[in-house]
Amino acid sequence: MNRLSRLVVLAASASMLAAPALAQDAQAIRTAEQLRDRAMAGSGAYSIVEAITTRFGPRPAGTASERAAAEWGVGYLRAEGFDNVRLQDFPLSAWSRGQESVEIVGRHAQPLAAVGLGGGEATPPEGIEAEAVVFETWQGLLDAPASSLTGKIAVVLQDTIRAQDGRGYGSSSVMRFQGPTEAAARGAVGYVLRSLGTHDHRFPHTGATRVGEGTVPAFAISPPDADQIRRLVALNEGPIRLRLKSTAAFQAPGRSQNVIAEVRGRERPDEIITIGGHLDSWDQGTGAIDDAAGIAITTAALKLIADLPQAPRRTIRVVWWGAEEVSQPAPAQGLAGARAYADSIANEVANHVAISESDFGAGRIYGLSLPSGQADSDFQKAAMRVLTPIGVLWNPAPARGGGPDTGPSVALGVPAFQLAQDGTDYFDVHHTADDVIDRIDPKAMDQNVAAWAALLWLIADSDVDFRAAAPTP
Amino acid sequence: MNRLSRLVVLAASASMLAAPALAQDAQAIRTAEQLRDRAMAGSGAYSIVEAITTRFGPRPAGTASERAAAEWGVGYLRAEGFDNVRLQDFPLSAWSRGQESVEIVGRHAQPLAAVGLGGGEATPPEGIEAEAVVFETWQGLLDAPASSLTGKIAVVLQDTIRAQDGRGYGSSSVMRFQGPTEAAARGAVGYVLRSLGTHDHRFPHTGATRVGEGTVPAFAISPPDADQIRRLVALNEGPIRLRLKSTAAFQAPGRSQNVIAEVRGRERPDEIITIGGHLDSWDQGTGAIDDAAGIAITTAALKLIADLPQAPRRTIRVVWWGAEEVSQPAPAQGLAGARAYADSIANEVANHVAISESDFGAGRIYGLSLPSGQADSDFQKAAMRVLTPIGVLWNPAPARGGGPDTGPSVALGVPAFQLAQDGTDYFDVHHTADDVIDRIDPKAMDQNVAAWAALLWLIADSDVDFRAAAPTP
Repeated sequence: MNRLSRLVVLAASASMLAAPALAQDAQAIRTAEQLRDRAMAGSGAYSIVEAITTRFGPRPAGTASERAAAEWGVGYLRAEGFDNVRLQDFPLSAWSRGQESVEIVGRHAQPLAAVGLGGGEATPPEGIEAEAVVFETWQGLLDAPASSLTGKIAVVLQDTIRAQDGRGYGSSSVMRFQGPTEAAARGAVGYVLRSLGTHDHRFPHTGATRVGEGTVPAFAISPPDADQIRRLVALNEGPIRLRLKSTAAFQAPGRSQNVIAEVRGRERPDEIITIGGHLDSWDQGTGAIDDAAGIAITTAALKLIADLPQAPRRTIRVVWWGAEEVSQPAPAQGLAGARAYADSIANEVANHVAISESDFGAGRIYGLSLPSGQADSDFQKAAMRVLTPIGVLWNPAPARGGGPDTGPSVALGVPAFQLAQDGTDYFDVHHTADDVIDRIDPKAMDQNVAAWAALLWLIADSDVDFRAAAPTP
Repeated sequence: MNRLSRLVVLAASASMLAAPALAQDAQAIRTAEQLRDRAMAGSGAYSIVEAITTRFGPRPAGTASERAAAEWGVGYLRAEGFDNVRLQDFPLSAWSRGQESVEIVGRHAQPLAAVGLGGGEATPPEGIEAEAVVFETWQGLLDAPASSLTGKIAVVLQDTIRAQDGRGYGSSSVMRFQGPTEAAARGAVGYVLRSLGTHDHRFPHTGATRVGEGTVPAFAISPPDADQIRRLVALNEGPIRLRLKSTAAFQAPGRSQNVIAEVRGRERPDEIITIGGHLDSWDQGTGAIDDAAGIAITTAALKLIADLPQAPRRTIRVVWWGAEEVSQPAPAQGLAGARAYADSIANEVANHVAISESDFGAGRIYGLSLPSGQADSDFQKAAMRVLTPIGVLWNPAPARGGGPDTGPSVALGVPAFQLAQDGTDYFDVHHTADDVIDRIDPKAMDQNVAAWAALLWLIADSDVDFRAAAPTP
C-alpha cells in the first residue's frame, strides 16, 4: 500500500470508529494512568542502565564492546518476553583515539586536560608544535582572514551557555563539528576548542567532528584549562606555544548493529510506533546518561506495557540504535544505525505511526510536543490529562523527534513526538569521563518511564493519525 | 646561645616587661583588628594562587616547574618588599609517572579511570595481568593470610569518610601508604585502591606511597570505578581480571628548594615565628588548594603586616616549602623541604617562638589551637577577642602544627599553633586533576588571611612564650 492510500484507509477507519473511540479513550486514559502510576512507584529503568554500563563500560561505535552489549541486549529482551527480538547490522569503521596530549611548551610550560575530537585525525608522531592564536568567540575565528592562521594553532574559548532545553549546546556544537575545517581553511595546522560543557571541572568533552579532506588534528580542553589559557593571554608575556599529539585512527571496515524488539499490536500489528535510545557511547565514560538512560527509559516503558493483560491495538517497537556518536570517512556520514533503520522501513513508511527517541540524559520530563496540528486535538487533551500530574507541560511547537536517531526516519515522513527532558545539568557531564551511573537519579528515571509508558499507550491503543491532522506543508 | 640559657633570658624579659605588656596588648589588639578588617575587605591572596597556578601549572617536587616557581617567588617576594628573601636548596630525585593504565580484561573488559600512586614503581612493559582479590575494607586485606594473594592483584574498596577536620582521610591514608607493602607481604603482584576521596566523580587520587623493597606497582581508581568493581563482584559471574601498566620512575638525583622571606622584627629580630605553605604539587592538577592556597594565605597575611607603619617586635618568616608531596627511595624519607628547613634552624631552636603551616585548602578557618597550657591565658583571650567575630572557635586540644611541613621543626621543640580550616569539601578535590583555581572562593581566602594576619601580629608584637606555659611533659 502506498502512503496516500494508507492515509485514506486510516482516515476512513478513524471516522468509522469515532463513537467507539470515545468510550475506548476513557479506558485508554485509565490504562495510561495506571501505567504512569506503576512507573512512578518503581520502573526498573535504573537497573537497565546499571546492567549495560557495568557489564560493558564504554561502548564506542563499531567496537567489540558495542557488539557484546547488543548481543546481551538480544538475550535480555527475549528473556523479558518481547516479540520479534533481532539484530540489524550494518557496515562501520570504528574510530579509536590512541594516545593523545595537549601541552603548553616553552614559557609557562604545562600539560592541559584535553581529549581528541571524535573522528579526528592523528598528528605526526613527533606532534605538532606551533604558536596559538586565541579567539574568544567562534565568530572571531570566522572573521579571521584567509591565510591569517598559516602555521598556527587556532584556539576558540567560547563558553557553552546553560539552558534547560540544551539550546546552548545546539548553538555551539558547530564549533566542534566545523572548527577544524574553518581553522584549516585559514591555514591553521591544529585546532583546540574549549570543551562544549557548562561545568567548571577538569573533564574535557569529546564528540564528533567533520571527517575528511581539509581538516586538521583537533582537541577539546576542559573548561578550567580554557580559563587557564585566558589567564595566560592576560599576562601578555609573549606568544603561547602548544604541542599537540594524537595517534587517532579509523580501524579496518567492520560492523555495528541496532537491537530491535516489539510488543506486537493485538488489532493492527502492522502499524508501528518506534521508540528507543542509542547503545553506543563515547569512550571516556560509560555512556550512562548518553545514552544507556534512553534505552532504559524506553525499554522499561515498553516492558510495563508488555506486562499488561492485553497488548495495545498497534505495535510498539523499541530500537537500541548503534553507532549514533559516529563520524565516518566520506562518503559515509554519521548516524549509521539510524540510517540503517530508516533504510529498513523505507518501503513501509505509511505503516509507521510515529517515532521518538530518549537521548537527552536522565533528567525529569517537563514538556510534551506532538506533530503539527495536534494543539487542542482530542489526543493532545487526553495526553495532557495523563501527563500534567507528573509535571509535564504542553509545548505548542511541533516535535522534531526527540533525538538524532529519529532524523532519517522523520526525513522519510514518519511523524515525530517528543518528551522533553530537563537538560539544565546535562552538559555538565555529556561526552566526558564523568558520564557514569553515579550521575543518575533513579526517581527521575521513573518519572521518565511514567511519561513514556502512558503516552505510548495512548498512541498505540488508539487510531490517532498524526499525518491526518498535519497542515499541508 | 643554647636552648636553656635562651629560655632563661626569655623568661626574664617577659617578667620585666609585664606591666608595659598590658598597655601594649591593647594596642596590639587594635592593630590585629585592623589587620583582620583589612584582609576581610580584600586580601590579595587569590591573585597569588592565580599567579602560581597559571604561570607554572603542576609543580611536582624536584622538577623544572617547581624550580621555576621558586625562582619566580624570590622575585615576587623581593618586589613586595620582604626582607632577607632567599632560596634554600637540598638534594632530591624527582618521580614521574610516565604512561599508565588500569583495565579490566576478559569478561566485562573495560578501561578504568586510574592513576599511579606517587613514588610507585613501574610494571614490566607488557604490564601485569592477574585476577583481582577484592576487599571491601582495609582490615579485610590485613586479615588475609600470608601467601593468600600469591600471583593476584589486591583491590581495596574502603570509602573515605567526609569530616570537617579531615580525620576521614587521616584514618584511611594508611591504605595508600602501606597498601602496596601489605599486599606484597601476602604474595600480591599489584595493588589497586579506591581513591582516597569523598566525591563521586571520575577523578582518581594520587599521593605518596611507601618506596623501596617489598612493594608492588600500585594505583588508585576513581570512586565511580570502585563502585563499578563492586557491581561486577555482585554479578558473581566469575573472577575479575585486571591489567596494570606503568612506566613510573625516579629521575637522576637533582635539587629542590624552599623559598624564604621575612618581615624583620623591630626589637627582637632574632625571635622568629615561621609560617608558610608548600610550593610543590602533584602532577595531575595545578595544586591550587594543595597548596598554592596555603602559600597565598600566609604570604598575603605577612604582606599586610609588612605594609604597616612599623614592624612587629619579633621577626615573622614565611617559607614556601619545596617537596612536601614527595616519596624518596630509602634511606631518604618524605618532607624533604621541611627537613632541610628544620636542619637549618637546629642550632637556634630556642629563637623560634612558634611555627605553623596552612596546608588544608582554601576553606574558611573555624578553629584556633595553641600550644598546650594556653587555655585561658591572656594571649588566648586576646586572640579569641580578635578572631571570634570572623567565625573562629577556640579548640582546647593543643596544636599539632597546622601542616606536615612543621613536623620536623616541631620535633626539634618549636611550639606549634594551628588555624583549622573547614575541610568538609577538601577531599572532593585533593590530589586529583580537579585541584585547580576554579575550586577556590576568594572571600574564604580573605577570611583565612584575616585570621592569620591578626594572630601573627598578636604573637609577633608581644612577649608571649609558648614554651613557658607548657606543662612539663
